[in-house]
Amino acid sequence: MQVELVRVDDAFHFQASGMSGVPVHIDAAENIGGHNAGARPMELLLMGLGGCTAIDVLLILKKQRQRVDDLKISVSGERVKIEGTEMTPFRKINIHFAFTGAIVEAKAQKAIELSMEKYCSATAQLSPSAEITHTYEVNFVE
Amino acid sequence: MQVELVRVDDAFHFQASGMSGVPVHIDAAENIGGHNAGARPMELLLMGLGGCTAIDVLLILKKQRQRVDDLKISVSGERVKIEGTEMTPFRKINIHFAFTGAIVEAKAQKAIELSMEKYCSATAQLSPSAEITHTYEVNFVE
Repeated sequence: MQVELVRVDDAFHFQASGMSGVPVHIDAAENIGGHNAGARPMELLLMGLGGCTAIDVLLILKKQRQRVDDLKISVSGERVKIEGTEMTPFRKINIHFAFTGAIVEAKAQKAIELSMEKYCSATAQLSPSAEITHTYEVNFVE
Repeated sequence: MQVELVRVDDAFHFQASGMSGVPVHIDAAENIGGHNAGARPMELLLMGLGGCTAIDVLLILKKQRQRVDDLKISVSGERVKIEGTEMTPFRKINIHFAFTGAIVEAKAQKAIELSMEKYCSATAQLSPSAEITHTYEVNFVE
């Protein structure tokens, strides 16, 4: 798997692309000279994690014939500075799933657990460096 | 740090956003029912890593009064399946930096090393689960 980043201004705005060709805009905050014209790099890690588990969970619930009308995901990460460096990786990450549809709660919970333990590559990638937890809610619609 | 993902079709297309509000499109491949309308989740991890180190390296070279006319970055990751699961995290990642400008090679190399060892939070996040290497080239322009 490979991605390319090209610089699109004379500061920190990059346009990244992978196999779909759809551009992802990346930029730094204004306080360090960026123009806030894209996602922060560390946000992309949280987005990748959220997208990975979202796809798994939707696939699993579809196999179990649950009707998902909507799914919103919030991923929040708590960063901690590594002493002697300027690095602040995430040490705790929570993924919150908000489902709407004709979904049995136990099946939603099971689908999330299966993603976390068996399917989601991003979880496998990030769990050695961050504790990953999840929460969920189901807005049941007949 | 927090990001939100909202579903934008009835398959796997999500729109993610963080503090800039600029949307990042995420989608699955067509062979699992996606529409290829966005980045793959695992690509976002590589993009985050590339963006993180790109910003560091540009900041460091600016402080060292090097003139960077352009910077292109390729990030490639080698995925390995974890036995007993369907997870395929990256186990090796290479970041290639292609600089154009009035840049002394030793300073480019030093800037990359500083990013990897001291500044880049994404490196700290991913290096416990993947070996991260780098290569670079300088197209020197007076």
